[in-house]
Amino acid sequence: MNIDGKHTRTIWPAGDGKSVEIIDQTKLPHVFETKKLSTLEDAAHAIRDMLVRGAPLIGATAAYGVCLALQEDASDEALESACEVLNATRPTAVNLRWALAEMSHAVRNVARAKRVAAAYARAGEICDEDVETCRLIGVHGLKLIEEISEANEGLPVNVLTHCNAGALATIDWGTATSPVYQAHDKGLPVHVWVDETRPRNQGAALTAFELGHHGVPHTIITDNAGGHLMQRGQVDLCIVGTDRTAANGDVANKIGTYLKALAAHDNNVPFYVALPGTTIDWTLDDGFDIPIEERGPEEVTQMSGRLDGGSVVTVDIAAPGSAAGNPAFDVTPARLVTGLITERGVCAASGGGLAKLYPERGDE
Amino acid sequence: MNIDGKHTRTIWPAGDGKSVEIIDQTKLPHVFETKKLSTLEDAAHAIRDMLVRGAPLIGATAAYGVCLALQEDASDEALESACEVLNATRPTAVNLRWALAEMSHAVRNVARAKRVAAAYARAGEICDEDVETCRLIGVHGLKLIEEISEANEGLPVNVLTHCNAGALATIDWGTATSPVYQAHDKGLPVHVWVDETRPRNQGAALTAFELGHHGVPHTIITDNAGGHLMQRGQVDLCIVGTDRTAANGDVANKIGTYLKALAAHDNNVPFYVALPGTTIDWTLDDGFDIPIEERGPEEVTQMSGRLDGGSVVTVDIAAPGSAAGNPAFDVTPARLVTGLITERGVCAASGGGLAKLYPERGDE
Repeated sequence: MNIDGKHTRTIWPAGDGKSVEIIDQTKLPHVFETKKLSTLEDAAHAIRDMLVRGAPLIGATAAYGVCLALQEDASDEALESACEVLNATRPTAVNLRWALAEMSHAVRNVARAKRVAAAYARAGEICDEDVETCRLIGVHGLKLIEEISEANEGLPVNVLTHCNAGALATIDWGTATSPVYQAHDKGLPVHVWVDETRPRNQGAALTAFELGHHGVPHTIITDNAGGHLMQRGQVDLCIVGTDRTAANGDVANKIGTYLKALAAHDNNVPFYVALPGTTIDWTLDDGFDIPIEERGPEEVTQMSGRLDGGSVVTVDIAAPGSAAGNPAFDVTPARLVTGLITERGVCAASGGGLAKLYPERGDE
Repeated sequence: MNIDGKHTRTIWPAGDGKSVEIIDQTKLPHVFETKKLSTLEDAAHAIRDMLVRGAPLIGATAAYGVCLALQEDASDEALESACEVLNATRPTAVNLRWALAEMSHAVRNVARAKRVAAAYARAGEICDEDVETCRLIGVHGLKLIEEISEANEGLPVNVLTHCNAGALATIDWGTATSPVYQAHDKGLPVHVWVDETRPRNQGAALTAFELGHHGVPHTIITDNAGGHLMQRGQVDLCIVGTDRTAANGDVANKIGTYLKALAAHDNNVPFYVALPGTTIDWTLDDGFDIPIEERGPEEVTQMSGRLDGGSVVTVDIAAPGSAAGNPAFDVTPARLVTGLITERGVCAASGGGLAKLYPERGDE
């Protein structure tokens, strides 16, 4: 991802060799501000208060959090306690637990004096692996865009996406956005319809921000508009992310994804879900067993934004006294998903499709 | 509609006998403020700047605008000129043109000295007729709620609605809300899921406001949430309004209606559209011929709300520099509509269904 013309990841070791830097995503899109994390508590706070978000980025931040903790105290007890603190920051991100296990494994049998170096090395690898996974998702997804581009005879390929499954949710490239970035970088004309994604507005705030900085043509629309655009032939392809994928190909993603999948199905628009294999929950036969987080009503009844002078304020937007409901995710059944784009290739959204790409897990 | 415990219409003749009062809907839900209209220009401004909105209420305000104009000058020229001014305020509302034709007809052959009285009489009738039409829509729609209530064995009937097809869009009762008010007033337990309805938030701002003041239990949700609620069995019935209905039963309504109709269809939730017969456009065979208004991008990229101190401000909410698209309506094909609730009864959303209720028009 390029920001202000400079290639930027979402997290990186600082020049001082003893801290890491992140983009403070709570300030986006209003202010681009990086923040230095120097202690375990800094890292825990960044995850807990959503300065970083997106499962892969949460995992990477936790990995660096272990590095920061070991700098203070490289004992077994400190390692264990750091993992406990970090594990408690967010309840649902699978990558968080995975990254902490990886870090423990990488330093446990290393002499204390060498633990910090080993930890930084593994945290760096975790980031690089995620970048490569996302790049490969883009390589496979790019082919879908290329096919449509050929059929469109040079007219822009219109991609609709929901929420932010972008570079800002990962280390770089993103999942749903990776095919788009690769098409754009290759010179294919591509244009993205960015669903605003109420209530947290991650589309208008984050996806539009990163596409804009990278120079990808895009248009923000309300979450209500996508169906109409599909009816009028203005969407060639939908690509979204997923927070958890069931073994049958059902996907749980940001609330509203299901509605776009229904509209795509009704208008014969291909609907793809981009995901790293790590989001597949092989223990779930069915997406409807995925628990849906109910978040606070203030996300629906309030909104943050910039005043003319540039200061950021929060305002009440709803009728005073009215209750609000805020389910954060919904489940899109596999029957509405044209295919899954993974780091190993594109497959049908089905048990069989997944088993072909992940034969080592398909039997579980 | 009750506001602060008092039965309230959206427009009424003032006590002074020479002006009319309206609720200034641009101030809702933050402030409830009535405004006196004393001149033709006051009425034109109220329609143009959306202090009043909703086709029936626009028509009624235009009717009273003619009264106000005739108070100043009861000549034929003044009548004609007033109709021209009022007709130019909003481009699409069918009722506006209809109401002006009614007013012209009512005063044209009346002696000048009696024109003001004749105009006020006809404007009052137009309002009363609209109230009766909306009441009858409620009577017919109530039966649908009663049936579900019986099947629910006393548990609340959960109705989902989109945008504001409420009392605030008409003179009283509303269209989509009329069955709900009548169920509530009769003591049937009913609960409304109120779609926020981005970008203008008429659900969170207007529908929640009027339901709250009338005491009807309701919960504001994002436009993204309805599909999930239907998947989980939390919606018994959808009722929405329509801005224009084609002769085949296709309906054009606020953007996002189509997505809810798809979700209802996918989950076997009945999806009804409430409408006065005057919204049927018998000249249109098909809803897809209805032109869709594209509104300004600032409705998507900005939001108004209350600061803690109570003052109302507008803030920028999107990534700076990103474009926004804003189609205001979409078309829901008749195949997704369970039925149309009209002042004459409930019918299938089809040419045949409409012809049975409106035999005098079905042959056109």
